Amino acid sequence: MSDYLQAHARAIDEAAARIAPHIRRTPTLTTDLDPDLLLKPECFQVTGSFKPRGAFNAILSLAARDPAPRGLITASSGNHAQAVALAARTAGLPAVVLIPEGANPAKVAATRALGAEVITAGISFENRDQRLAEEVAARGLALVHPYDDWDVIHGQGTAARELLEDRPDLTAIATPIGGGGLLSGTALAAKAQNQEIQVIGVEPANADDAYRSLQMKERQRLPRAPDTIADGVRTLSIGQRNFEVLVANRTIEAIVTVTEAEIEEALSTAWLRLKLALEPTGVLPLAAYLAGKLPKPQKPAGGRGPVALILTGGNFDPAGVARLLASHG
Amino acid sequence: MSDYLQAHARAIDEAAARIAPHIRRTPTLTTDLDPDLLLKPECFQVTGSFKPRGAFNAILSLAARDPAPRGLITASSGNHAQAVALAARTAGLPAVVLIPEGANPAKVAATRALGAEVITAGISFENRDQRLAEEVAARGLALVHPYDDWDVIHGQGTAARELLEDRPDLTAIATPIGGGGLLSGTALAAKAQNQEIQVIGVEPANADDAYRSLQMKERQRLPRAPDTIADGVRTLSIGQRNFEVLVANRTIEAIVTVTEAEIEEALSTAWLRLKLALEPTGVLPLAAYLAGKLPKPQKPAGGRGPVALILTGGNFDPAGVARLLASHG
Repeated sequence: MSDYLQAHARAIDEAAARIAPHIRRTPTLTTDLDPDLLLKPECFQVTGSFKPRGAFNAILSLAARDPAPRGLITASSGNHAQAVALAARTAGLPAVVLIPEGANPAKVAATRALGAEVITAGISFENRDQRLAEEVAARGLALVHPYDDWDVIHGQGTAARELLEDRPDLTAIATPIGGGGLLSGTALAAKAQNQEIQVIGVEPANADDAYRSLQMKERQRLPRAPDTIADGVRTLSIGQRNFEVLVANRTIEAIVTVTEAEIEEALSTAWLRLKLALEPTGVLPLAAYLAGKLPKPQKPAGGRGPVALILTGGNFDPAGVARLLASHG
Repeated sequence: MSDYLQAHARAIDEAAARIAPHIRRTPTLTTDLDPDLLLKPECFQVTGSFKPRGAFNAILSLAARDPAPRGLITASSGNHAQAVALAARTAGLPAVVLIPEGANPAKVAATRALGAEVITAGISFENRDQRLAEEVAARGLALVHPYDDWDVIHGQGTAARELLEDRPDLTAIATPIGGGGLLSGTALAAKAQNQEIQVIGVEPANADDAYRSLQMKERQRLPRAPDTIADGVRTLSIGQRNFEVLVANRTIEAIVTVTEAEIEEALSTAWLRLKLALEPTGVLPLAAYLAGKLPKPQKPAGGRGPVALILTGGNFDPAGVARLLASHG
């Protein structure tokens, strides 16, 4: 194993120990769909998404500094917002969260309920990094970036670390990719353990900046917030650190894209057959699996080995899911 | 421990070993609702409900007899039907299933897809026991009763056995009650391990025959199929063996009833907060918990001990779920 992977794997081990009292160890599920399919349902994580893994790791690390920061700030379309609000409250620090206008109202309400100050007025996917920099400068708060932050990346890597504890025989892991925090942590955790494990990112075809970044070997940026029901991956480009892990160090095998129809199909399958009340972003890897778009890893003995999907969250908009289920009634 | 409990506990241990290759060991989940709440989500069981536990135990036992039966027959509103169809197929025996007219179409289709012969014409909740007896006599098939059968009861008891393996510190377990198979198995498994564990059955107020049977110490029968969205517990009365376990041997503390509104509220909570796509019958214990109707067991050190809810299945009607979610949109 390279020094690079070894150092990151150690940081993921430390993150796992740091966040253990605050997060839930989610189970590895099997299904009636395919004996080789394994699911990591992070919808059962604290706050309903995987995001507290990274947020707790970052915020507990910040809070342990001397002097500790006066408070925390982040920008998020929702799940990271709730995670930061909860971790900040746990650490006894105030939190400010910028959420783009038009975000899922359930996520906004949940963030406020956790005690964070939420600013939505005038915030868009396009201007939020700029606005974040302004608020950081004006208020002297510590930034907890949703994905371009090593502590966040190492925290997110704990999900794959748990999967590999449960099933060391895994041959592939697929996760959604937006900014790249989860996929970076997953790739580092998996490749440090076994270079043969295939790591695959899945994003909407309507938000294919990560796919193009991997092809071009250069960060690509979407011109505007993409039109996709997967509201958790509307980021315009992957982060610098994420690019370093995923593309420059080539820790992943592929990024595959799925259509909006494939995401809807996967959402129905999740609800009706897997009995998992997932949000659209959470089913991205399932959409790729169902569409036959995941590479087929081979077991040494022939046949396909166990493939794990990290299903990232369950904070869906009830009206949207109602429309989809009604069409199956 | 009494000889009665000891003998049944041994049979549940044997059932666990017999069915292990065919069923899934479901996880014990914690939630953001309450640190003392534990969930056993049997929606993740093979076929989407706990029923294969009992069906596999009964059918594998029957298939091992010399001579083996020519085939199997049962009556069910749906989940037991799917379980029998799957277990029969696994054992290489034909299966006939009587399903009342008007049952959840998804459950009927799933049963046929598993290779069983399904008869619905002229079958009602009121006449199905009679029709079952006629078919058993006419065809010479072995009956796999959905609840009034010791092998089924012992198979269903394996869910509580797993819960107690995961959390020996449990102070209470609540399950739905229809015919009483799951509650009987749960009570036997729990009381054999620890007489202090409270065992509670939950049924719709509109189908309160079990509640009244416990009060009157005599089996009560509903005059007709009850009007409840919990379609898995529309049985008219508990079985004889179930009465023996639950009432005559008083292995349970209480049966509590919940209103249709409380069931709908629990269904919303399951999907929106717990991220579990459960069917109405599956949330009965959650409905009682949320309504504050479960007895409050005390930990020796004060405070309430861990309470487990067995959430029995996820085979819901999509149109019904869509209507309920739309009202939260």
